[in-house]
Amino acid sequence: MRIYDIIKAKRDGLELSSEEISHFVRGAASGAIPDYQLTALLMAIFLRGMSERETADLTLAIAGSGTCIDLQMPKAVDKHSTGGVGDTTTLVVAPLVAACGVPVAKMTGRGLGHTGGTVDKLESIPGFSTLLSMEQFSHQVKEIGLALISATTELAPADKTLYALRDVTATVDSIPLIASSIMGKKIAAGATHIVLDVKYGAGAFMKSPQQAEELAKAMVDIGRRVGRPTVALLTSMEEPLGNCIGNSLEVEEAISVLSGYGGSPALIEVCRAVALEMLKMYFPELGDPAAKLRIDDALSSGQAFKKFKELVAAQGGTLERGLPEAKITTAIKALQTGYVTRIDPLKLGNVAISLGAGRLRKEDKLDYTAGLRLYARINDYVQAGQTIVIAHSDKPLSSELKEAITSAFELGELNPQPKPNILRIIK
Amino acid sequence: MRIYDIIKAKRDGLELSSEEISHFVRGAASGAIPDYQLTALLMAIFLRGMSERETADLTLAIAGSGTCIDLQMPKAVDKHSTGGVGDTTTLVVAPLVAACGVPVAKMTGRGLGHTGGTVDKLESIPGFSTLLSMEQFSHQVKEIGLALISATTELAPADKTLYALRDVTATVDSIPLIASSIMGKKIAAGATHIVLDVKYGAGAFMKSPQQAEELAKAMVDIGRRVGRPTVALLTSMEEPLGNCIGNSLEVEEAISVLSGYGGSPALIEVCRAVALEMLKMYFPELGDPAAKLRIDDALSSGQAFKKFKELVAAQGGTLERGLPEAKITTAIKALQTGYVTRIDPLKLGNVAISLGAGRLRKEDKLDYTAGLRLYARINDYVQAGQTIVIAHSDKPLSSELKEAITSAFELGELNPQPKPNILRIIK
Repeated sequence: MRIYDIIKAKRDGLELSSEEISHFVRGAASGAIPDYQLTALLMAIFLRGMSERETADLTLAIAGSGTCIDLQMPKAVDKHSTGGVGDTTTLVVAPLVAACGVPVAKMTGRGLGHTGGTVDKLESIPGFSTLLSMEQFSHQVKEIGLALISATTELAPADKTLYALRDVTATVDSIPLIASSIMGKKIAAGATHIVLDVKYGAGAFMKSPQQAEELAKAMVDIGRRVGRPTVALLTSMEEPLGNCIGNSLEVEEAISVLSGYGGSPALIEVCRAVALEMLKMYFPELGDPAAKLRIDDALSSGQAFKKFKELVAAQGGTLERGLPEAKITTAIKALQTGYVTRIDPLKLGNVAISLGAGRLRKEDKLDYTAGLRLYARINDYVQAGQTIVIAHSDKPLSSELKEAITSAFELGELNPQPKPNILRIIK
Repeated sequence: MRIYDIIKAKRDGLELSSEEISHFVRGAASGAIPDYQLTALLMAIFLRGMSERETADLTLAIAGSGTCIDLQMPKAVDKHSTGGVGDTTTLVVAPLVAACGVPVAKMTGRGLGHTGGTVDKLESIPGFSTLLSMEQFSHQVKEIGLALISATTELAPADKTLYALRDVTATVDSIPLIASSIMGKKIAAGATHIVLDVKYGAGAFMKSPQQAEELAKAMVDIGRRVGRPTVALLTSMEEPLGNCIGNSLEVEEAISVLSGYGGSPALIEVCRAVALEMLKMYFPELGDPAAKLRIDDALSSGQAFKKFKELVAAQGGTLERGLPEAKITTAIKALQTGYVTRIDPLKLGNVAISLGAGRLRKEDKLDYTAGLRLYARINDYVQAGQTIVIAHSDKPLSSELKEAITSAFELGELNPQPKPNILRIIK
């Protein structure tokens, strides 16, 4: 089998065989196929597309390019978000479903760009370690039904190579390539059942609901084809999901939601919906009403928050002395009176990065306490001079950043048509 | 300007600006743009195509990527063949048009694959040197009106980089990429007027007359756009053009044609037609009949052959002791009686390479004396046992090669419809 012939076949719009797909993915992982051939193939895939069968084969090949974790559980339900700003879902959902009896053995990542990472958020809790051995990991899941770690072995190395090449050759935005990359990593991490939170809107990778739906359908189809049942929720990222952007701020908001003290209604709605799908996958005998009731119960009884505290304790963290706080807080006020018609999540995400909450490059150091807390959401009516954001930082806020925060909010005279937080569920 | 944006624009089917084209070509020549980005762009160009304007800009960018030769001649008419088997045209046409008063200052190449190279053929003449300094080159053109050399400075280095990448990424067969590569090199070599011999058929790069016509039109269009008048002949490569395949054998056939002793009728027809177009470009006042008469005259008077001998002498060669001859000649006989309906030029070209007449890799050493002489052409009637080929070699012919030669000939009971050697002339 020659990579040349594989490139030529895809160039001509032919369907690649499973063997051809596995050949180039193995070659990408091992380095046996040079980058300049991989990028020509990636562009041909971008422009010619891939059938559902090819996409499923690509997913399995990516999953199989490195270690595949066996979680030693009859069912391992995982969740995945395509990423957004103020997306604290995992921190809420993982203890919530664990409290409902769904074991969670989750490998998660660090943030890059405007999307935060669950590992970073957890590490903002004093003492919390996301580096567990596989034995510790399994043991903890057996003991308390919940563990969240950063992957210690290399999962899906082919994906790393292919993604780095796509990133510099304008071949990222391809549904089969995105879908197989996400699903390949989930499968390598041991998931048998997958709930996807596919975001659309200004702060999401997919700008339109149509694109997000196409991606969601591709991933649900992969799941069906490879025997890993998958459900996808299409959720809005037109504004930050939570009210907080930044590591310890998001942990705080997760704790508020888990303990029932508050939090962004959009965040609460999405967390409950994701948890519901996970619960129904794990307990297929449970009907919708019973599953919802169990979620309500876990939240109102304090069981969900208790599970979160067990997680923190099990992984060496402590909440006793509270979370670290920023030196400086700066209130940003509305410049006029009116309804909030738009909040640019990317702008706010980038301000948070500038404050130290995220990374532009892998090597960047984080300031866990840095970030933004929003006091206004789309459809809210605000008065000129009212605080809409409090920025948390190490240094006084520059006028550029202040201006960026203010300009992220658009105000109008008319209350905009409310839009759903969850558009559709695709199974 | 970022290569990423250029790739993205072409990926989306947009027209690239002159500046964008010149940016990536310069980057290809200098190495500033990594191969993996160039190959993604090449695949996007392959699949999205290029407008005539883009193709002309690409040609000029390729030509300008290295030294551009100034031949210091008001008009420099060059010819180029897209390559085939037994294609001895340059060896005939160059002295023929020089004898008619058209100065020929030609840079030419070595053979690779089944296509022979004029430099190799000339070097099969004892003492002949194709390595002249630019001063010697110009001086010789002034003195005898004819010089044929191997390029000493690097012409169109971007083409070298891009071709090597196209070769391994299935992006060779793209009309804008082929057309700009050929025309870019001709322009860099100083041609102001160009006659193209675009071949189609089993032994050509372009298999169908339609493909060849498309390529020819693209190149004629480039010539018009960049102010280098170009004419293209569409000629058949369904069988070897000359009767000889191999370096000194082809020189011998060229001498036969130049001195009027014989040679393949197809070769003679194509040589006269190419010479006619070159003559009319150099002497636009000359009508067709007068130009044809001048060519007839140069051949029948011996002036053309005399010019060839002057060329050989000027570049240190000698024909006095004849051309080197192979140790062994083996006659290959027809296995049955009938009309020759097909001769596979690629098969014969590959046999000639195996005998040492050509290279599979750049480093391969040639046996100048090796090759094949054909004694039957398509439409000929042959008797079983009649010699159809004599193979010239250093070692006894293997049974595989004998078998390959025999199987290159197809015989049938019916005389096939004769096909033209020259299909059309595109201006």
